Amino acid sequence: MKKIVIFGVGLIGGSFALALKAANKNPKTGLQIVGVGRSQASLQRALALGIIDTIAASVEEAMADADLVLIAAPVAQTAAILTSICPYLQAGTIVTDAGSTKSDVEAAARAVLGNKIAQFVPGHPIAGRESNGPDAAIVDLYIGKKVVLTPLPENTAEDVAKVAAAWRLCGAIIHQLSPQQHDEIFAAVSHFPHMLAYALVDQIANKSQADVMFQYAASGFRDFTRIAGSSPEMWRDISLANRHALLGELSVYQAQLMRLRHLLEAGDGAGLEAIYSNAQQARHDWITAIESAEKQNKEGGN
Amino acid sequence: MKKIVIFGVGLIGGSFALALKAANKNPKTGLQIVGVGRSQASLQRALALGIIDTIAASVEEAMADADLVLIAAPVAQTAAILTSICPYLQAGTIVTDAGSTKSDVEAAARAVLGNKIAQFVPGHPIAGRESNGPDAAIVDLYIGKKVVLTPLPENTAEDVAKVAAAWRLCGAIIHQLSPQQHDEIFAAVSHFPHMLAYALVDQIANKSQADVMFQYAASGFRDFTRIAGSSPEMWRDISLANRHALLGELSVYQAQLMRLRHLLEAGDGAGLEAIYSNAQQARHDWITAIESAEKQNKEGGN
Repeated sequence: MKKIVIFGVGLIGGSFALALKAANKNPKTGLQIVGVGRSQASLQRALALGIIDTIAASVEEAMADADLVLIAAPVAQTAAILTSICPYLQAGTIVTDAGSTKSDVEAAARAVLGNKIAQFVPGHPIAGRESNGPDAAIVDLYIGKKVVLTPLPENTAEDVAKVAAAWRLCGAIIHQLSPQQHDEIFAAVSHFPHMLAYALVDQIANKSQADVMFQYAASGFRDFTRIAGSSPEMWRDISLANRHALLGELSVYQAQLMRLRHLLEAGDGAGLEAIYSNAQQARHDWITAIESAEKQNKEGGN
Repeated sequence: MKKIVIFGVGLIGGSFALALKAANKNPKTGLQIVGVGRSQASLQRALALGIIDTIAASVEEAMADADLVLIAAPVAQTAAILTSICPYLQAGTIVTDAGSTKSDVEAAARAVLGNKIAQFVPGHPIAGRESNGPDAAIVDLYIGKKVVLTPLPENTAEDVAKVAAAWRLCGAIIHQLSPQQHDEIFAAVSHFPHMLAYALVDQIANKSQADVMFQYAASGFRDFTRIAGSSPEMWRDISLANRHALLGELSVYQAQLMRLRHLLEAGDGAGLEAIYSNAQQARHDWITAIESAEKQNKEGGN
């Protein structure tokens, strides 16, 4: 790969660029990273930080002879970016993305790209930080992190392997799921917890005693609500994009809370303890499993 | 204070003992820490670790000429411990506790102690770790941490000041609330979040795909669910003890989730963003405030 185009040169796209540059041992092979974005200020900053080599004068220029295109913009912009790309999408170019939801991205890509859909390999790097923008980009963001690819039936194995290889160069571990599996899983373990954390902080903030209450919140509350410090715009988009799976999780959780209400009202300590114990045990097993996996990764690479 | 009796020589009681010993600059003044508990193994361990000076042969012996008694056992045992203490409670002895709920402790103390109620000053140190037992006790657990006292109308100012002074020797910052205020506040910022975290982990653990889902859970999920790693028995007791306030929080939260459901179903991005933004801003303001307070404490003591 020689020419890589990145739409969105912030944390995700910028870190991808930095990692690829670092992995490119021989600068003479001429890896060229081209930035595209809505904000000229971000593009100039990414150029100054050495994240990108050039700012594209136009999408047409960016796409000419591109080997790989990464769309690393907010997921709600994916369709618009694909629309801008499509007229200039050459046969040899592979397009991938970094969106947190995949069913909607697949649907948008099918609608926009039509018979070029085989060139689009959807992906989702499971990495993030609380900060954003080109200044947040770091070379080692993806080391040891999962990247989930959700290949489409139309993708060639070769193209999927190329996208996987680029992420592996960044240090990532490649997983594959269907877009639907991806969205169900991430609704449960990521999107829905964000919604719960936002809902709780909003609830406390709306109380007349909010200031006093926050004064007594301690480290447990701080950790529980850390994800409520995330970008509201980004999570609005993710919530809407994955609302089908989110509504499923929400229904089950509403039933859980009703169960807890009945147990509290009945003073049923054994019933409460059964739920708490099941959760504690499951979390303990999970932590044990990830710590063991982290150890193996450190010892044996990925 | 010369003779201090501790019921429950684990994390909370043991750390209190260690901090008082460390603060007692002149060992010749003869501070004596006496341990009482249900588990002889824990008491022996606390003795071996130098947390306590002696194991009481009986409650009667422990209570003889005691200056201060700290009840640091699971909150559900408070009434039984007060009952065992009451016959031997001398006029000069002050009793306090470390329970996470206060209205129920006040009610139990009134029922058990009767006209000796003035000698009981309820308290709650806001400090903890995930581990328990005498081995978890550390000398600096309370440094910079809040201890909430919820004095009763019958308490003398002098007795409240003595309990406060003991905690200040451990490095804690003293706050005062009514038992009802205490329970409402901690329901919102501690007890209810624990219930939500347990409910979510239980929900995922009960899915047929649980193993795959946990595999993709990342650091946001880990932080959000950290409190679901807490002791199920302890949180069963707290949930029951504070169920009135918990049911209040639960009702508001159930309405929040219904609101989120309607917004998702309607695809109302602006409505979702309004809740998420309010939460993000409130959390940001809170974090800024506590970081500024921590800085002041470091600079100027408490």
